[in-house]
Amino acid sequence: MNLESVSGNEQTIADAVEVALQAIGHLEVRRFGNTVVARTSLGRSERVVVAGHLDTVPANDNLPARRDDEKLHGLGACDMKGGCAVALRIAATMPEPNRDITFLFYECEEVEAERNGLFLLSRSHPDLLEADFAILMEPSDAVVEAGCQGTMRVDVTTRGERAHSARAWMGENAIHGAADVLTRLNAYQPRRPVIDGLEYREGLNAVFISGGVAGNVLPDKASVSVNYRFAPDRSEADALAHMEEVFEGHEISVSDSAPSAMPGLSVPAAAAFLEAVGGVARPKFGWTDVARFSELGVPAVNFGPGDPHLAHKAEEFVPLEHIRTVENQLRNWLGAPQ
Amino acid sequence: MNLESVSGNEQTIADAVEVALQAIGHLEVRRFGNTVVARTSLGRSERVVVAGHLDTVPANDNLPARRDDEKLHGLGACDMKGGCAVALRIAATMPEPNRDITFLFYECEEVEAERNGLFLLSRSHPDLLEADFAILMEPSDAVVEAGCQGTMRVDVTTRGERAHSARAWMGENAIHGAADVLTRLNAYQPRRPVIDGLEYREGLNAVFISGGVAGNVLPDKASVSVNYRFAPDRSEADALAHMEEVFEGHEISVSDSAPSAMPGLSVPAAAAFLEAVGGVARPKFGWTDVARFSELGVPAVNFGPGDPHLAHKAEEFVPLEHIRTVENQLRNWLGAPQ
Repeated sequence: MNLESVSGNEQTIADAVEVALQAIGHLEVRRFGNTVVARTSLGRSERVVVAGHLDTVPANDNLPARRDDEKLHGLGACDMKGGCAVALRIAATMPEPNRDITFLFYECEEVEAERNGLFLLSRSHPDLLEADFAILMEPSDAVVEAGCQGTMRVDVTTRGERAHSARAWMGENAIHGAADVLTRLNAYQPRRPVIDGLEYREGLNAVFISGGVAGNVLPDKASVSVNYRFAPDRSEADALAHMEEVFEGHEISVSDSAPSAMPGLSVPAAAAFLEAVGGVARPKFGWTDVARFSELGVPAVNFGPGDPHLAHKAEEFVPLEHIRTVENQLRNWLGAPQ
Repeated sequence: MNLESVSGNEQTIADAVEVALQAIGHLEVRRFGNTVVARTSLGRSERVVVAGHLDTVPANDNLPARRDDEKLHGLGACDMKGGCAVALRIAATMPEPNRDITFLFYECEEVEAERNGLFLLSRSHPDLLEADFAILMEPSDAVVEAGCQGTMRVDVTTRGERAHSARAWMGENAIHGAADVLTRLNAYQPRRPVIDGLEYREGLNAVFISGGVAGNVLPDKASVSVNYRFAPDRSEADALAHMEEVFEGHEISVSDSAPSAMPGLSVPAAAAFLEAVGGVARPKFGWTDVARFSELGVPAVNFGPGDPHLAHKAEEFVPLEHIRTVENQLRNWLGAPQ
């Protein structure tokens, strides 16, 4: 069965998920837009969120899916139908887990924050996200990827004065002024802090540059858009202060920002989970929705089948072995008989 | 009378010019598109071209024209209705000049070369442009502006390798690579060669810069468009060789090029003209159609009423005093009784 579910077009798949979950007697199911929440209420001493997004990036000649002996290929196989499949199977087959579980299947993770189902639920029904721990089933090579780096984009603007390029001495070239910005980027040494035993790697990169008025005019403005990826020991305010320091003397403005998330592996629920799934954790460099749980005070990790480097690529796939491993480790942790 | 004559829309004004010239008994008038040529054939030992373009840049809230005691204000007043008015008056009032004259009123100077009336005539009827000397009545503050600088645009491209900005160490940032291009531009010392006693001023300026794929991707390509204005002692081939030297190690390609023109003031006809109009000459920094005459082997200068810095500006005007001066100097040179 191939259900297209590009961001904004999740109704069919959300319907299918809702029907499947409603058929399971031990879950209370609620729907918000194309986000589906299903909870056990067994009175356990601990509650865990198991979350996955239903949407995919746009199709890229990679539908329908196909399966061989080792892999499932196709749009979303890696990011993150594999993780959602594991969550649905746990939901259907474990009526009495040793922890209460809130399953969350949400819409619009791949697009702007304002449409993100997890973000919307955190504003409308934060009580539904209350938990001791959260597992985001993003592809992570079937091991725990902890925390996530924050991301900020700042526009660094240089200014000058227009003049005809045949009489350049009458003006000041703003593009030439950007040399200093690029030189600072080239000289920049990104930090590699170790947090909870994990080494993060920051980065500072120009992602866009623009400037120019006409082919015979010295431009009066140039702009470099710089993306700063910052480790979980820095807040967004720290990140901005650092950008102001790096680009001191230049005009900067923030165009985009999202916080980091601490790995949080020292929290007992997280430590227990890590031990149950093999004890191996590595840092998450990219930004994921674990940062939203972190903001809500819920420790969270990325843990799902699939290679994160394949996300958003035409040739994405998920190894069947990852799916089996992740499912078995979750089942054990949730108290299934060995 | 206000006749709009933005490039491509010169029919009305060309009709008016043609009718006016036809009414003058001593001229042979021919029309090519919206370009009008009118010649004397008095068997003089010397022939001179007096040329002006009929078109203007687009209107910019500067129509209709208005006149006060000192100036004529309005679209094209400076560039270059003032010069055309002088040429028409000379044509109408000097039936027996001491040199044969080819008056040329042409279309589409303000747009691409392929539509330029002077360029088209040089290809279809080069014999009509044969002369010992040419005066282009572009605004030049009522003094001779000799020669013109050439202009070349080259795209300097830097390349890298794409990577997610959260894992920058896996790629190479092409925008960062452009730092070297901008640093060379900042360090560049433009030449100021003296030619025929006139000091020219070269210039090397970035006029556009671009690069970027997405807000979270290291770009694999960046491009800097550089405009080189070169003095008349350099050919286009010289200019390109110089660009290859300045940007050695980078990928460059020429996007636009136009030759310079030597001042040519040592040619007897030009020297005599310069002496007749007061002996003052200065270098022309911008590019003008004098380069086309130069290519045809006809020495040419810019000489017209109006401040060249006002060309293409909304507030352009021409001082009436300039018009009187230029007309009187031309009349004297052409043998009018003092």
